[in-house]
Order: sequence, then C-alpha cells, then structure tokens
Amino acid sequence: MVNPVLVEVIRGNVVESRHRGSYAVVDKTGEVIALTGDITTPIYPRSAMKALQALPLVESGAADHFSLSQAEIALACSSHNGEQGHVDGARSILAKAGGDEVELACGSQWPRDIRPLVLAGEEPGDIYNNCSGKHSGMLAYAHHMGFAAENYWKIDHPVQQEMIKTISEMCDYDLASADWCFDGCSLPNWTIPLQNLALGFSRFASGETLSNERKGAAEKIIEAVRAHPFMVAGSKRFCTRLMETVPRAFVKTGAEGVFCACIPHAGIGIAVKCDDGAHRAAEIAVAAVLANLDVWNVDEHEKLKALAVEKIANRRNIETGEIRACF
Amino acid sequence: MVNPVLVEVIRGNVVESRHRGSYAVVDKTGEVIALTGDITTPIYPRSAMKALQALPLVESGAADHFSLSQAEIALACSSHNGEQGHVDGARSILAKAGGDEVELACGSQWPRDIRPLVLAGEEPGDIYNNCSGKHSGMLAYAHHMGFAAENYWKIDHPVQQEMIKTISEMCDYDLASADWCFDGCSLPNWTIPLQNLALGFSRFASGETLSNERKGAAEKIIEAVRAHPFMVAGSKRFCTRLMETVPRAFVKTGAEGVFCACIPHAGIGIAVKCDDGAHRAAEIAVAAVLANLDVWNVDEHEKLKALAVEKIANRRNIETGEIRACF
Repeated sequence: MVNPVLVEVIRGNVVESRHRGSYAVVDKTGEVIALTGDITTPIYPRSAMKALQALPLVESGAADHFSLSQAEIALACSSHNGEQGHVDGARSILAKAGGDEVELACGSQWPRDIRPLVLAGEEPGDIYNNCSGKHSGMLAYAHHMGFAAENYWKIDHPVQQEMIKTISEMCDYDLASADWCFDGCSLPNWTIPLQNLALGFSRFASGETLSNERKGAAEKIIEAVRAHPFMVAGSKRFCTRLMETVPRAFVKTGAEGVFCACIPHAGIGIAVKCDDGAHRAAEIAVAAVLANLDVWNVDEHEKLKALAVEKIANRRNIETGEIRACF
Repeated sequence: MVNPVLVEVIRGNVVESRHRGSYAVVDKTGEVIALTGDITTPIYPRSAMKALQALPLVESGAADHFSLSQAEIALACSSHNGEQGHVDGARSILAKAGGDEVELACGSQWPRDIRPLVLAGEEPGDIYNNCSGKHSGMLAYAHHMGFAAENYWKIDHPVQQEMIKTISEMCDYDLASADWCFDGCSLPNWTIPLQNLALGFSRFASGETLSNERKGAAEKIIEAVRAHPFMVAGSKRFCTRLMETVPRAFVKTGAEGVFCACIPHAGIGIAVKCDDGAHRAAEIAVAAVLANLDVWNVDEHEKLKALAVEKIANRRNIETGEIRACF
C-alpha cells in the first residue's frame, strides 16, 4: 500500500517535491471519523506523544505537590527552542522537585538560536536540549514517587514502566510488546499505530473512558498548554503559532514527520505521519486535517486554512512558490 | 506512476521513514544504462547543475584571461559553507575580473557556522551565500564578455541566455521552452528531465559530441574540482567527503533532493531526484547508484558502499539506527 500525497511543494508553475503520508481522526466515541493511507502499521510517535508522557506528572499529584506553574506543566509537554523562558522553566521544575540539572539524561544540545551562548562564551548543555522540559517533568515525577533519579531514562526504570502503562491505556495498545528504540533524547519511544495514537488523543481531549484523576490531569495539561503555547515550542515555531492563532486546538510536533493533535471542545484526536519524515509537510498536513473538520467557527476555520499553506521566498525575498496541502 | 523507495531510515528494528525517487544513468554513447522510476518528467536541477553553468566561464576564455586558479574554478561550481576559503575565493574571482562584491545578487546568507561572524559582531552578506562562487563566476564571465554586470541574474540578460544555450546543448533539451523559476539565489533554474540531465553530465564527463573548446572546458572544471573538493562544498559536507574519498567520482548536490554526478574515466553521467526533496536521502542514493556501477576498483567500490549507509546516533551518542539505500 502506497500512502497518498498529502503535501506538495510548488516552485513557479511546477510541483517540485511531494510528501506522502497518512492520518487518522478519532472522535470521542473512539470511532475513526476520517483517515487516509495506512493507519494500522505501528510508527514511532517521537515527541508528538509528550502530552501523554506528562500525564503521570500531573495524575500522581507531583505537579500539585511541587506547585508547578501552568507554564512549567506546558514545558513538560514541549519540544522547545532553548530560549530563556524554557531554560528557566526546566531549572525551576528541577529546583521545586529537589532535583538537579546534572540528573538530566537528554544530552547536550545548542539552543535553536546559538548566538546568546556564543557571545557569552558558554557551551551547550542538557538544559538547552529541546526535550529538557519533558525530562525535568519525569524527574519531578520520580522524586515525588521516591524513585531513584538515576537511570530514569532506561526502559526498566519505574518512570518508564509507568509511561508504558499510561500510554497503553490511553491508546488501547500494549506498549509492553511493541517495538521500541531510544529517541534522540535517549528516552524509550514505542511504536504505535496512527489510529491508536489518535484514539489516545481523543481520550486525552474528551476524558472518555478515563478515571477522574486522569481526566482531571488531561484537563490541567490542556489548560496549561492553552495558557502558555510559547512554552511548548517557542518563537516562530509552528506549534506555538498555531495554538496562539487557534487556542481551541492542541498540536504537538514529533521528529520524522509526526504530529499529534486534539480538539478538546469536540473530543477529537488526530495523528499524522509523513512517510519521509519531513517536518515541513507534517505541519501543513496537520493544519489541513484540522481545517477540514466541521468543528470550528468561521474565524478559526479561515485561520487554519491559512496555516495549511506556506509561501516560499528566496534569499532576496522573491516569492518562488508555496508548500500546500492537497487533500 | 509512483517512484520506488530509494532510501530507508531505520530506528531500532523498524523502518521509520522512507524516501521515494528516481535516477538515470547515461553512458558515453548517450544510452540510459540504468534507471528507476520516472526519468522523463522535467524536474528542477537546482544547484546540482552548477558544473554545467560554469562551462561558459571556462569555454569563453574568461577563466584563463583572469588567471583564475583551480580552486576558484572549483568554487564557481560550488554550494559552499561560507568558510574562509570560500569567501576569500569568491572575493578573489571578483577582484581578478574587475568586479565588485556589491554586484552579487545571490542575497544575504549566514555561513553554515555562524560563530565567527557572531563573535566578530559582523552581519551576514551575499559573499557568504552558498552560491556566491557561482555568482562570482558568472560576473567574471560577464565582465570578460563586456556585458553589463547589472541584472546578470535576469533571464533575458546575455549571461542567462548563454546558460540556456549551453545547457540545452549539453542536455539535448530546449531550455528556452522549459518551465523555469528563480532559485534560492535568484538565478533562473529550468526544469529538465532526469534522463537529459544525466545525458548532459555524461557528455561533461566524456566530451562526446562536444566542440574541442567545450570538451577542454569540461576537462578543466573536472580537474579543478578533483584538485579542490573542499571548494565545492566544505568541511563535513557530503560532496567534499565523497570526492576526497573517491577522487575519480564527481558529485554535486542541489536543493530539494537532487544530485548530479559523473564518472569521467567511464564517461558516465548520473542524475537523481528524491520525490520529497530530502538531502539526506539524495546523498545516500547517489552513493548507492555510484557503488552499483561496474567501473570501480575494489577499494573505490568498498568506499562508495560505505558512503551509501549513514549511522544515526542520538544526542548522547547512542546509536539508534541508520539511513541506507534499498536498491
């Protein structure tokens, strides 16, 4: 089965490049209400599932116990730019939880804009890693539960075993027997079919089938992200821009062309994967999937349609084409 | 027609992403001796055709007249990193030709490593643009021919009209009636079928059907690039690495997943396009196409096979998978 073309890259009058992929949309009853392509073969969700990985932090009471702010909870779901607000947030989560920056196992990374560090003569570090918010959140959860911080990133550590349990329940899919591999930040990442990922995010949005504790945790995370879309990505980033533009949508990017999304007011969950792993295509595709759903007011609908097209200009700002959804 | 998968991205035991595409290999008789996928629909060659665009500079006698060095001729075919050697080379070409940096119309760009400029408190500029070598070469050609430097990048300027003539002849394809658009550096880029691009590079390699002047120019360009692979791309870049490793191969990357290549000792030309525009896939694919040809000694063959696989490690240097050709 060959997945259809989701996104085209236009230059002049010619389609220069094409991105194939698939997506699943699941409603609050758990039914697939829209799809294209293969939604049953397991794929790595990568960072697109971070909101699900933040559930234990909130559901366990750790976030309340350590008085994490909404901005800090949003950061726990983030793939951030390493801007000052993100770095400060990760340090604050660790400090509140009695943890320490040296516990981070995400690996050293330059922030997206390297200039401040270069000018200060500083080196990159784990705190600038785009995943440091998620890692800080997991460490806070470990400290709250009395687990050793050491090896929190290994698959047999109780933190990761709780991830397996929570995500398996959310997605109705047994992660314990799924293929998995270390992610870019060294945490385990399990393969899940798109339809199960979309199911997980529909439950995340609607609370359907969830315990009161988990439903409350999901609501808190959604409220936190809605209040602080900057913390989930950062300046000029697509996730931040989309959620600032259409606050009733929740979207989260993952490496290799994955996007998860949900629409809390409609109880809908969405998962997108571009076959070739292209970010640029996954962004356009998730905006188009959202725009095509009949759950928006006119203003939101127009804004989502606008986000499903990106103009391309060259180095002298001459417009040469656009990236656009073709479904 | 759906092009086949050329390159797979592996994570753990799973194929995480797939890149489709096509390629054509043409021998010195002009015959297609290997292909996969669609090689007849015109595609934008982007920077992969820069070696053909350097022909007028040498064929006209401009390179000799201005005593351009081999390194400078190689730079005229480059998509460079904006390292010191590249910037110095572009400035030298312009100075020798009586031109000036302000004539450059490629647009401002940061060098690949922005740190030296940031630390010096300097701004990016056209000279750092990855295409400044090609632009400097075209300006040198314009000065030699007595053309106005102004508007050298516009399609009706005699410099670009000479590009149309030369490339049309090389590729046996009429660019004057082809779709075209401005490239990232504002020069016209014309769509050409892969089989014609491969034909152009087979003639570039073999000299077959070319005038003595053009054959000599192609030989000079190939010698220049072979002597200075650093000037064609730069530190850690695939083109430079491949040609340093296997000096009997000539390869040149272009944006949106294009590669052109030739094998001068065998008179073979190659053109590759990844459907989705991915660099990482085009690099692996061109190495695999080269490796699959029966024109190498054992050492070269092993080195090319090694270049057709790239290990992926994460931010803590844990190996997570690889990018590999699957043909």
